[in-house]
Amino acid sequence: MILHMDLGGRSYDIVVERGCLGEAGRLLPLDRKVLVVTDDGVPPEYASAVAAACADPYTVTVPQGEESKSLASLERLLTVMLKAGFSRSDCVCAVGGGVVGDLAGFAAATYMRGVDFFNIPTTLLSQVDSSIGGKTAVDLCGAKNIVGAFWQPGKVLIDPDTLKTLSPRETACGMAEAVKAALIGDGELFALFEEGKAAGDPVPVITASLAVKKAAVEADEREAGLRKTLNFGHTIGHAIESVTGLHHGECVALGMLPMCAPDVRRRLLPVLESLGLPTEVRADPDEVFRALMHDKKMKDGLITAVFTERPGSCELRAVGPEKLRAGIDLVVKR
Amino acid sequence: MILHMDLGGRSYDIVVERGCLGEAGRLLPLDRKVLVVTDDGVPPEYASAVAAACADPYTVTVPQGEESKSLASLERLLTVMLKAGFSRSDCVCAVGGGVVGDLAGFAAATYMRGVDFFNIPTTLLSQVDSSIGGKTAVDLCGAKNIVGAFWQPGKVLIDPDTLKTLSPRETACGMAEAVKAALIGDGELFALFEEGKAAGDPVPVITASLAVKKAAVEADEREAGLRKTLNFGHTIGHAIESVTGLHHGECVALGMLPMCAPDVRRRLLPVLESLGLPTEVRADPDEVFRALMHDKKMKDGLITAVFTERPGSCELRAVGPEKLRAGIDLVVKR
Repeated sequence: MILHMDLGGRSYDIVVERGCLGEAGRLLPLDRKVLVVTDDGVPPEYASAVAAACADPYTVTVPQGEESKSLASLERLLTVMLKAGFSRSDCVCAVGGGVVGDLAGFAAATYMRGVDFFNIPTTLLSQVDSSIGGKTAVDLCGAKNIVGAFWQPGKVLIDPDTLKTLSPRETACGMAEAVKAALIGDGELFALFEEGKAAGDPVPVITASLAVKKAAVEADEREAGLRKTLNFGHTIGHAIESVTGLHHGECVALGMLPMCAPDVRRRLLPVLESLGLPTEVRADPDEVFRALMHDKKMKDGLITAVFTERPGSCELRAVGPEKLRAGIDLVVKR
Repeated sequence: MILHMDLGGRSYDIVVERGCLGEAGRLLPLDRKVLVVTDDGVPPEYASAVAAACADPYTVTVPQGEESKSLASLERLLTVMLKAGFSRSDCVCAVGGGVVGDLAGFAAATYMRGVDFFNIPTTLLSQVDSSIGGKTAVDLCGAKNIVGAFWQPGKVLIDPDTLKTLSPRETACGMAEAVKAALIGDGELFALFEEGKAAGDPVPVITASLAVKKAAVEADEREAGLRKTLNFGHTIGHAIESVTGLHHGECVALGMLPMCAPDVRRRLLPVLESLGLPTEVRADPDEVFRALMHDKKMKDGLITAVFTERPGSCELRAVGPEKLRAGIDLVVKR
């Protein structure tokens, strides 16, 4: 199926189709120089299949992990493009998870002030979340996503067959973002999780999650307001991520729990457990709180966060730091 | 006077007014954290006057010269912003020439995916040309402006009083871009140059040059077509710049001559001479030609360049390399 992102002159299609990675040559305009970016945790046959479909491919494989989201990696990609004589009408194609997409997208956004970008996310997390919406970035001095650009892709290919090569932990992390989408925007998808029907076929989970994100991004491309609801679970989640070794999706799972009304939280707990996601973590709550206060900007002594009273709906609320501190204590245990 | 750049949601005003640098606190919303970027060739009192008008200023002075347009300088600026806790609602203000504006603008474009940018150009070259239009960039591996973004300023303050501190050579370089604007879009401005009346009061030259640029940028913000006419003189000019020690404006002066019809060239020669700009340079024409071929992309064996048959009008033409080679021989002498 195809989802169309309606963003005026920056509109694009998201193709969700088994086997579409192997159809990249038909689905994407690759008859030019193409920088194919992947990482060494992605099965190499994915990037090589895409490269084989390009007229003039240049493949760069960065090390797996957040460390590759750096200005140094950006410079590496841009230098390859420059030495290979890329022009404004050439392009970049990401094949991998969120790190690869964010880095490659930022290179596309800045090379000659912007060239075409195509994204082929191969992890569940990037398929349900980071691959659409146009946020590209690298980290700086340990601060995540501090340098970047809004740069919409020309097309996104989501091939659910690539999920077969994921570890159970990676799959669980992707499911955490899908649960987030369900809680803030799709009560029926949340019911699917509660009924234990989400784990079988990933396609309905992916498309429903993307539909939630699509609506938020179309309404607010540059995150001035509504799009902030997509940060549900991320306020406390990011703080947990910065002080523990847990993965992003696991931290989002933990971060969502304090932002639910008590009855929603009671329903969310078994859902997270069934997906193999944590509901508690051992760490120093004071340290998590300090990380949160460093990360988030207060306005008039309040921090804006996303809350849900009912699966499928959410709201932004400005709350005092003590409320977030109490939320941390719910999930972070000494 | 105020010129309004009409770019939809990215519209802004250009204030051209004697003494407006000293009015920055009234003219710009500086009641927040402000990264003030300048270079050590700019009189330091300009940046300190702007900093004094900010609620919470952080001044960075980079070394004068093209070497400061680097990813390393960008990282330096972004790190200062990060360490100082800049949020998305803080801003960057450039005080200096084109190098400072391009670098500071790119930092504003990428910090947290974009914060407000204000530009206070203090050289004639940047006042008539680079300060408006939203092109920001740094260099990479010797290639100019290869990494950047289109990022429009929130406002531009042009204070002609700052021109008093320029060297004659810097003034001449600025005049070269004003002559360019005249040739491609304003026959009356060219007449002013021919009559020798341009050197007295810089204000009419600045406003007329900006009006030419404004029209091209409004019609084609991202340089898909018409805006390319602003590259008049730059095709051969950039190539000369990359192999000689001449300044940008001097190379543009040389680069314009071969792109004029013969009678226009005869009229342009005395204008350039009266402004103290070169009309010939000693260098290896073969080397200039190689630099041009490396710099410009051919399409079907042709390179697109801008030509004028009559002051005040111009056209894009796709020409063979041999035509550009002959043009180089007109101004580059062994």
